[in-house]
Amino acid sequence: MNKTDFERIFADQKNRYLDEWMKLLSFPSIGTDPDCEQACNDCANWLVEHLRNIGFESRLLLTESKPVVFGEHIGQPDKPIILFYGHYDVQPVDPLEEWNNPPFEPVLKNGRVYARGAQDDKGQFLSALKAMETLIANDCLDVTVKVLLEGEEECGSDGITKSLSKWRELIQANLLMVADTSTVPSSAPTIIMGLRGLIYLTATLYGPSHDLHSGLHGGCALNPAAEIARLVASLHNNDGSIAVAGFYDNVKAPTPREEELLLTGEFDAASYEKEIGVPPVGGERNYSPLMRVGFRPSIDVTGIHSGFGGTGVKTVIPAKAFAKITSRLVPDQKPADCLQAIINHLQAHTPHGMRLEISDTGGVFPGFRLNPDSETAKKAIAVLSQMSDQKPAFLWEGASIPVVVELARVSGADDLLLVGFGHENDMIHAPNESFSLDQFQRSYIYTCLMLSSL
Amino acid sequence: MNKTDFERIFADQKNRYLDEWMKLLSFPSIGTDPDCEQACNDCANWLVEHLRNIGFESRLLLTESKPVVFGEHIGQPDKPIILFYGHYDVQPVDPLEEWNNPPFEPVLKNGRVYARGAQDDKGQFLSALKAMETLIANDCLDVTVKVLLEGEEECGSDGITKSLSKWRELIQANLLMVADTSTVPSSAPTIIMGLRGLIYLTATLYGPSHDLHSGLHGGCALNPAAEIARLVASLHNNDGSIAVAGFYDNVKAPTPREEELLLTGEFDAASYEKEIGVPPVGGERNYSPLMRVGFRPSIDVTGIHSGFGGTGVKTVIPAKAFAKITSRLVPDQKPADCLQAIINHLQAHTPHGMRLEISDTGGVFPGFRLNPDSETAKKAIAVLSQMSDQKPAFLWEGASIPVVVELARVSGADDLLLVGFGHENDMIHAPNESFSLDQFQRSYIYTCLMLSSL
Repeated sequence: MNKTDFERIFADQKNRYLDEWMKLLSFPSIGTDPDCEQACNDCANWLVEHLRNIGFESRLLLTESKPVVFGEHIGQPDKPIILFYGHYDVQPVDPLEEWNNPPFEPVLKNGRVYARGAQDDKGQFLSALKAMETLIANDCLDVTVKVLLEGEEECGSDGITKSLSKWRELIQANLLMVADTSTVPSSAPTIIMGLRGLIYLTATLYGPSHDLHSGLHGGCALNPAAEIARLVASLHNNDGSIAVAGFYDNVKAPTPREEELLLTGEFDAASYEKEIGVPPVGGERNYSPLMRVGFRPSIDVTGIHSGFGGTGVKTVIPAKAFAKITSRLVPDQKPADCLQAIINHLQAHTPHGMRLEISDTGGVFPGFRLNPDSETAKKAIAVLSQMSDQKPAFLWEGASIPVVVELARVSGADDLLLVGFGHENDMIHAPNESFSLDQFQRSYIYTCLMLSSL
Repeated sequence: MNKTDFERIFADQKNRYLDEWMKLLSFPSIGTDPDCEQACNDCANWLVEHLRNIGFESRLLLTESKPVVFGEHIGQPDKPIILFYGHYDVQPVDPLEEWNNPPFEPVLKNGRVYARGAQDDKGQFLSALKAMETLIANDCLDVTVKVLLEGEEECGSDGITKSLSKWRELIQANLLMVADTSTVPSSAPTIIMGLRGLIYLTATLYGPSHDLHSGLHGGCALNPAAEIARLVASLHNNDGSIAVAGFYDNVKAPTPREEELLLTGEFDAASYEKEIGVPPVGGERNYSPLMRVGFRPSIDVTGIHSGFGGTGVKTVIPAKAFAKITSRLVPDQKPADCLQAIINHLQAHTPHGMRLEISDTGGVFPGFRLNPDSETAKKAIAVLSQMSDQKPAFLWEGASIPVVVELARVSGADDLLLVGFGHENDMIHAPNESFSLDQFQRSYIYTCLMLSSL
């Protein structure tokens, strides 16, 4: 079967797909809201039933918190095993008053479905399930497909993460596919070529045993507010590079092929400044913005707090100060080593007479990068190339999706293929989230072609 | 009359003084508490009446907020005019449960009076009024004395400060005396030889138009939390000195005589560290702690805030950050110039692409220093020397008392003489504040002798 066949089937089945999509969207499955627990269970059970109806063996996998939906379709023995990941939980809906329709009563308007989860991730993963349904119905799903849909992606993926090790055999796979990402702004079909890893910590400086009068002690007592500033400032050199000893040791440089593909990326400094409010001049001066976000690690201060924060003046030297620090890592940096390197740096730069406490450490997740010359990448590029007049785009993301990288590791998948059809305009996480029938169809076609090509 | 005479009179009158002191302490005159407005008025009226009873012409001076008690006793025309400053308002009393007696029901125990205001400032100024009463009653108060007791010292002295210019003639004086300070820890009679001036501001850095995802933008967008840290850190050099251009230009160095007296000061680094919790190693490395606090300016971060402050992690690049900065000045630094110098420094060090906003500027008060070779100082030293076996101590305070320096300026007083008999053990501003009859008597004797010597 080819692209034209899939387009014809989609046209035939569109109204049914839409009905099912709207049914799926009607479950208020807000994973973080205790009042939605029943809705989450109902949604998960509906999906188990739905998978069964379209040709999967399916069941719920119980975790310490939200259940995970699991489905399996056995293919030819000589074909690879594909693990497909998605999530049925959605973001909270507030501010409710800004919605044009109730967020769990989906509305189709001008070719777009408006509802919480319309895109993220119900619309994206359902379009992929519809592709699998088509292939099964036409007896041409040759690969084995394992579907894993979790219910806590928006609030930390706790249940699935804690259960992964005991599911090792169940989820064993050759390739992990994920439909939860977006295209570049031009809507060119986009492959996520990399994700950064994540570590974080809180550094607290303890100084005087109590807040001091800044007149009596100013210029005499050590000031935690001033010293946390010096400490945080010491993490970077004047050229924006990271000053932590050994931090860059294992950073994997881009290959010539990656550099070449990176140069095809869309980036316009003026648009960035207009949209974000600052020019893209943070971080290392000697690298381009796309290179910095995609191929270079960063250390970011996400919070710094000490002393008086109200209006006016309070003449105090605060007793303590803290900074929250996260760091994004690239392959082959070792997360635990990098975390320790930052801690060592902070300890070495703590002034004599003050006490440094490190707490809330975590997120020890590595970065990921897809080899553009791998068989997986080549097939994905070929599929995406025939989908549109626009050339495929290659995006090395600065963000982290810890559960996905962990899932690839535990399942034994050689590759992780992130292709999604979300767009900035979909307003995910915000009021009036939507996903167009056109995007839904593109995701469907891509999944049909991709699974057929493996 | 001499010291022995005053001691005899004090012994005779002690019980009456104590009754009056306790009456004065029974007014819950918390200046900052709206519920205490009537109590403040009652207290002020009681003081007007009391001043009249002991030989002053007295009245209330109205201000925009709390009334000021004014009393005047005309002396010999060839004698100087003394302005005496005190305050009848007291600190709030919370935590109330830590008091051993109700804070406005004074108790005498082991020679100490326990109540809010027992020392600060009711006990201190009443002992001085009793001295004036004695001198008037014995027809030997030759100087003219103007008494000014305000009701908002603990909350900013707003009313009096705004009224000073219109009282210029009324308060015209040759010397300003204040009984609101403490002795050194050994209790040696202590002259405050200097006060530092004060300026302050809030610096806010605006970066992205909204909080950003630290993964998508880390190492690309400018981070206000990191940049406020760099900005604040840039205010000092590595040796602890101030890096603001021109800031030290007019700093008045101590005279050889001041340096000699400073060396007689009590300071023990180990005791400091034990009491305060940090060693006295803040500020300029090349100066001793007493020199730094007494004769050197300081820039202090009193607050720094940006981004996430809760438990755990939030991966955000904050949209803005602010720091609260105060600076203590010494003579002859010009407060307005120093404020501008700090602002210029901050502007020059703000990274391109961010916006700096300066707000909440103020406290533009100069420092003060008493010339140890002035007639006033010499007389005070002579008086304090005959009061005790302990040699007088000379204290260059790091703190500021803006209203007092301003009062000296507007009244035209050549000198400002701050001698008080408070002690750390008095627990002012805390539960169970107290002042001993012995301290009360020392303050009384000092005032008798000092006013007689002028």
